[in-house]
Amino acid sequence: MTFPPLREDLVGLAPYGAPQLDVPVQLNVNENPYPPSPEVVADIAASVAAVAGSLNRYPDREFGELRAALADYLNRDGGVGITPRQVWAANGSNEVMLHLLQAFGGPGRTAVSFAPTYSMYPEYARDTTTRWVEGRRESDFSLDLDRARELVERERPTVVLLPSPNNPTGTALPLDAVSALCEAAGDGLVVVDEAYAEFRRSGTPSALELLPSTRNLVVSRTMSKAFAFAGARLGYLAAAPEICDAVRVVRLPYHLSAVTQAAALAALRHADELLARVQELRSERDATAAWLAAQGLEVAQSDANFVLFGRYSDRHAVWQGLLDHGVLIREVGPSGWLRVSIGTAEEMGAFRHALTALGTPVRLEEE
Amino acid sequence: MTFPPLREDLVGLAPYGAPQLDVPVQLNVNENPYPPSPEVVADIAASVAAVAGSLNRYPDREFGELRAALADYLNRDGGVGITPRQVWAANGSNEVMLHLLQAFGGPGRTAVSFAPTYSMYPEYARDTTTRWVEGRRESDFSLDLDRARELVERERPTVVLLPSPNNPTGTALPLDAVSALCEAAGDGLVVVDEAYAEFRRSGTPSALELLPSTRNLVVSRTMSKAFAFAGARLGYLAAAPEICDAVRVVRLPYHLSAVTQAAALAALRHADELLARVQELRSERDATAAWLAAQGLEVAQSDANFVLFGRYSDRHAVWQGLLDHGVLIREVGPSGWLRVSIGTAEEMGAFRHALTALGTPVRLEEE
Repeated sequence: MTFPPLREDLVGLAPYGAPQLDVPVQLNVNENPYPPSPEVVADIAASVAAVAGSLNRYPDREFGELRAALADYLNRDGGVGITPRQVWAANGSNEVMLHLLQAFGGPGRTAVSFAPTYSMYPEYARDTTTRWVEGRRESDFSLDLDRARELVERERPTVVLLPSPNNPTGTALPLDAVSALCEAAGDGLVVVDEAYAEFRRSGTPSALELLPSTRNLVVSRTMSKAFAFAGARLGYLAAAPEICDAVRVVRLPYHLSAVTQAAALAALRHADELLARVQELRSERDATAAWLAAQGLEVAQSDANFVLFGRYSDRHAVWQGLLDHGVLIREVGPSGWLRVSIGTAEEMGAFRHALTALGTPVRLEEE
Repeated sequence: MTFPPLREDLVGLAPYGAPQLDVPVQLNVNENPYPPSPEVVADIAASVAAVAGSLNRYPDREFGELRAALADYLNRDGGVGITPRQVWAANGSNEVMLHLLQAFGGPGRTAVSFAPTYSMYPEYARDTTTRWVEGRRESDFSLDLDRARELVERERPTVVLLPSPNNPTGTALPLDAVSALCEAAGDGLVVVDEAYAEFRRSGTPSALELLPSTRNLVVSRTMSKAFAFAGARLGYLAAAPEICDAVRVVRLPYHLSAVTQAAALAALRHADELLARVQELRSERDATAAWLAAQGLEVAQSDANFVLFGRYSDRHAVWQGLLDHGVLIREVGPSGWLRVSIGTAEEMGAFRHALTALGTPVRLEEE
């Protein structure tokens, strides 16, 4: 035992997180560039003031009003008859995922996902000492369904993590893939992480449609992106009531503060206004992808609020070059690729200008 | 594997939590009965409004301003030269404990405490698959230091949990006991849970005094009790910087929302006002303990904002009888005992009146 007695498998690891740099144009962590309007800010402040007078009391442990409001919202965006008992929430969708792995993972159990994918997933598994098995996506970042099914049937995971749209590639999954993997998983859970679902293109469905017919499906969402609410930390999921009840066994009591509940309820009352901005971001995303392709770059098809592009023989040099022009993007994902979050029209102009100014960095040959 | 595939050791368990009943006099979960004043409420609302305009951005992952404010506060209440790097915080002290067990517990490792004690402790161990070993307190709820040291030396835990004052008994630990167990623990951590420290009687020291000389000591605190801030969920700890750095590896990124950070900073600005109420509660606690003793009851010495009393041959009947009179207390702790939280003078009057109205329930004989 060394001091401090950190778990042996954690020694030497750095805490997760992108650099938080003070740069004019921040396009690195898939934030929504539009701040809440003065009306939304006023409603949040008034809602918090209304609960602040009773902060000496513990919050509603079951957050019934918030679960009902989230269920209502989901039923407007792909959900069918979702009830409050089918909703669970936590401080960010990363805490939702931790709850799922705490309840359904653990020593002797396996979680599966398909790389390249969100780099926090193996950390949830590591933190809950769940065995982590990673399949591979195809070169266009889609899933080969036969190979994916085979992996699930062989490894028998209790949790399969299927982001759709995937981060950092932007790739959405067709519903028949979700269905097939739910069937292959047997009694294991399939978690479709729809953190970026509101940004999906017309015609791309939400896995929420499958909930009524699929008992082992969990669909997670977040208010961080579409609701421009990353600073308030509110993630949630929809699933069968018995899955939500099971998660309650591992949640810490009172995990959602009265302040968080009040602020989230206020934001949900302004869903129409907040989601109107999503349309602008989708247009900007498509325009950005088209412009990048027109520069001769490879561009991953994106249903999210970011675009993965490349491939560069020295992506770090491109990332640094953009930063030198005051534009911060993310050096993440498979070798040679870079990810840019979709900002305002002005910010995307700055990004295009900076990338153009770099000239033509050496690109990898098409394989 | 059954459906849903809950971890086998969690099947059939109920989620932690006292009944949330709508009763006039709530003396069951050690809440502070005094709500924040209008001035504090206004400052919280204004502080939240000030950050609400940028909630589209992720919060400060390292919450530097809050860590500095918490360090300043601790240096006023027993701490000596505590720096922001020695402070860690999370959504309630239960998340602080989870972080500690995630980082320093886990499979193959052992955590130790001494019963009767806080009933969440074994749940933290269970949720992190840390082996849980429980020693015993003496009949007056103090620790026999030789036996305690022997247990620690035999089990070699990576984490020893030592609440002081203890919940539900109210018992504070002398500093020589803390020192001796820190020495016995070797490279293991000793966590002194001081959730109720601000209520300690004159002459009872805080383990913060030992921090400069004891590298494996962790002292945890909460804003829930003394700061009347249970609804806002803010727990924290002070420890050596390398312990805080290790915890950062397992924390979820952005675990503390911008709203929580802003609300906590506002409350800390009003520390003097909020803590003035603590003096009233200490007096009411001593008066309640004296009154209970005068009724011929056994009463545990308390340095907290609650009193354990008894012993009844049918404590549930007494609990129910009080509830029938509109007074909710807690049926918790060793057999025959009941715990009452300290409320306002009026609430404690209602408690005394209700207990008197029950007549003289059958008590256990002194052993």
